[in-house]
Amino acid sequence: MGRLQAAAFELFAEQGFERTTVAEIARRAGLTQRTFFNHFADKREVLFGLGSEFQQEVVREITACADTLPPLDVVVCALQAADDTMFEGRRAEVTRRYEIIDANPELQERELSKQAALTGAIAAALRARGIDPETALLTSGAGMLVQQTAVRRWTQPAESRPLRELLSDVLHSLRTVAAQTADQGVVPSET
Amino acid sequence: MGRLQAAAFELFAEQGFERTTVAEIARRAGLTQRTFFNHFADKREVLFGLGSEFQQEVVREITACADTLPPLDVVVCALQAADDTMFEGRRAEVTRRYEIIDANPELQERELSKQAALTGAIAAALRARGIDPETALLTSGAGMLVQQTAVRRWTQPAESRPLRELLSDVLHSLRTVAAQTADQGVVPSET
Repeated sequence: MGRLQAAAFELFAEQGFERTTVAEIARRAGLTQRTFFNHFADKREVLFGLGSEFQQEVVREITACADTLPPLDVVVCALQAADDTMFEGRRAEVTRRYEIIDANPELQERELSKQAALTGAIAAALRARGIDPETALLTSGAGMLVQQTAVRRWTQPAESRPLRELLSDVLHSLRTVAAQTADQGVVPSET
Repeated sequence: MGRLQAAAFELFAEQGFERTTVAEIARRAGLTQRTFFNHFADKREVLFGLGSEFQQEVVREITACADTLPPLDVVVCALQAADDTMFEGRRAEVTRRYEIIDANPELQERELSKQAALTGAIAAALRARGIDPETALLTSGAGMLVQQTAVRRWTQPAESRPLRELLSDVLHSLRTVAAQTADQGVVPSET
């Protein structure tokens, strides 16, 4: 699967996603089209196939997590664990994947829709831990915001820290943003 | 435009979005197809046309907002103002719109992509106020999470409070979720 994915990413980058055929991907990888279809339903799946594995991993980590952690920490810890397993060490590949997706509105829509599905799955895993539905949805949305922001930062050329560290960093920034309020924030307090 | 929209929403609900034609919408509204196309590029625009107006409204409110407010309050205040103008008093219509969108994966993807565009526009408006890009993106993401959660709650049959009040409520919940940490949250502290 690694060879096929590498070949597909190269071709998508060179000539665009739309213009690349499965035949070309297989040829570049030195494999048959049949082998391609043993691994992927279509060329789009080369970009999105790992999504459901990532989702399973995150949900499993949430379920396994200590009952004593607050919900947002549960989500971020689960995302960090899944990131360690699935993304860390594959920075170049993930970066290239975003370049391909960012260049194609149809792929962007699919990416957003996969993210929405993951947000829903995280919320369901939180509800299964006894968290009320609205808190579950807010927490899951906040966790995904941390994940997305951290992954995007991680793919920047100037960035070299591990993804899990960036998630901790971004979580801290989100907490800071949320903690500033009109009453006690940058405004001189009236009381 | 109100008559065309009402007719379109009725037909989408009755027979599904896909099976409804512009000719039927115009007929139901007692207007010509030409009138339809004076207002909307296609039948999808009946559902999404207001999005860009909402976005302009939010961005204008952010720009007009007092410099002294913390960023997340700026975003939520701007969303509340835009909600007052564009959604409040149209609960039935907004509810029906979500029912139509939720029943159709293609419309869901479009909705997500409009939301992503709005998130980007809010982040840009924050950057224009001198906020650093990452804080701008996090704040905009958090604000949109508040907006989406509040609007969904507002369209529940059991809910009767004004939308702006629900935004304040959800913002408070998000702040609570973000404030609970492993060190000082529900866990007995180790120190």
